[in-house]
Amino acid sequence: MSSGVFITLEGGDGSGKTTQAERLDRWLSEQGRTVLRTREPGGTAVGVEVREIVLHHRGDISPRAEALLYAADRAHHVATVVRPALERGDVVIQDRYIDSSVAYQGVGRVLDPDAIRGLSEWATEGLRPDLTILLDLDAGAARGRLDEARTRYDRLEAEASEFHDRVRNAYLAIAAAEPDRFLVVDAALPADEIAAAIRTRVAELL
Amino acid sequence: MSSGVFITLEGGDGSGKTTQAERLDRWLSEQGRTVLRTREPGGTAVGVEVREIVLHHRGDISPRAEALLYAADRAHHVATVVRPALERGDVVIQDRYIDSSVAYQGVGRVLDPDAIRGLSEWATEGLRPDLTILLDLDAGAARGRLDEARTRYDRLEAEASEFHDRVRNAYLAIAAAEPDRFLVVDAALPADEIAAAIRTRVAELL
Repeated sequence: MSSGVFITLEGGDGSGKTTQAERLDRWLSEQGRTVLRTREPGGTAVGVEVREIVLHHRGDISPRAEALLYAADRAHHVATVVRPALERGDVVIQDRYIDSSVAYQGVGRVLDPDAIRGLSEWATEGLRPDLTILLDLDAGAARGRLDEARTRYDRLEAEASEFHDRVRNAYLAIAAAEPDRFLVVDAALPADEIAAAIRTRVAELL
Repeated sequence: MSSGVFITLEGGDGSGKTTQAERLDRWLSEQGRTVLRTREPGGTAVGVEVREIVLHHRGDISPRAEALLYAADRAHHVATVVRPALERGDVVIQDRYIDSSVAYQGVGRVLDPDAIRGLSEWATEGLRPDLTILLDLDAGAARGRLDEARTRYDRLEAEASEFHDRVRNAYLAIAAAEPDRFLVVDAALPADEIAAAIRTRVAELL
């Protein structure tokens, strides 16, 4: 149906998704490919408005409403941005997609991860990435990157660390269930090494 | 779970839902019941913002995104307004609910009515009305009410009439599938007669 290539990046905050997206974009452009870099949530004008609602009403919004708003953002983004680019033959590099919703909403909230995935699959008419790069970072390394200046390890940080571990484990379980779709990279490696591993795998796709 | 009563009003524009909601509200209040009148879409602050997105981006918004936005509005409205009122023991009189989404989206759009119903049932955790009043109006009567001044019957009106017929038939099919939940009233009858029929049915519920 589409001649393009759909690549998504997943991983916690501080795992280096933006850096690796930039490097992959540059390398693909040098190969003469047309690249579209995009993100969820907020990759369209409608998505920005949806994101405003979610962020500004976070304390009050019901969990199911929030999940449906993110799915609406995704539906609109895929229909108006991602699918048209893939149909033109572009390479789409996207920061976060369905796996983020499953990993975060399923772990942090009260909702069933299968229901979350089902919503997104309906929203996107089942559009799956050709490749998903998981930048896997253990909680200690993530904390070190995000907060290098602080030394006291207090209760809040312990909680944040436990949350990070649960998201990380959810990501690893998703990747293990679909090994063909996933490239799991140790995000603690030097950026050059990670970029090289990603290029090798992407080259196989092209 | 809830000691309140959940009553929804359905029917096309011009079928008299607002008039009948007001009359039922007054009668129930006279009986000493606490009544909450509400509506979808737009029954909460979040819902008003969602509605703004849908209305202002109507030309551009993807059909699945629109359906998900309406479901988000419904999820938030049910969780924060309708369920708390029912748990307090109130009578909730609501202008439009899931049946509207199924009748309108299923008929006018490209989406599967069962998928639309499934979304809303997930959004509301399966909250069903105790009674749904369908104010059934044939296309000729609806046109007469909404546009009494015009006499020329042009192509646009013919299309509107056909759309109205399809929505009406969708509503009648939904009502036929759940006769215990529905009271179908001929909306062309005098308002007093309709109000009396509604009171009789509601009295059985209380």
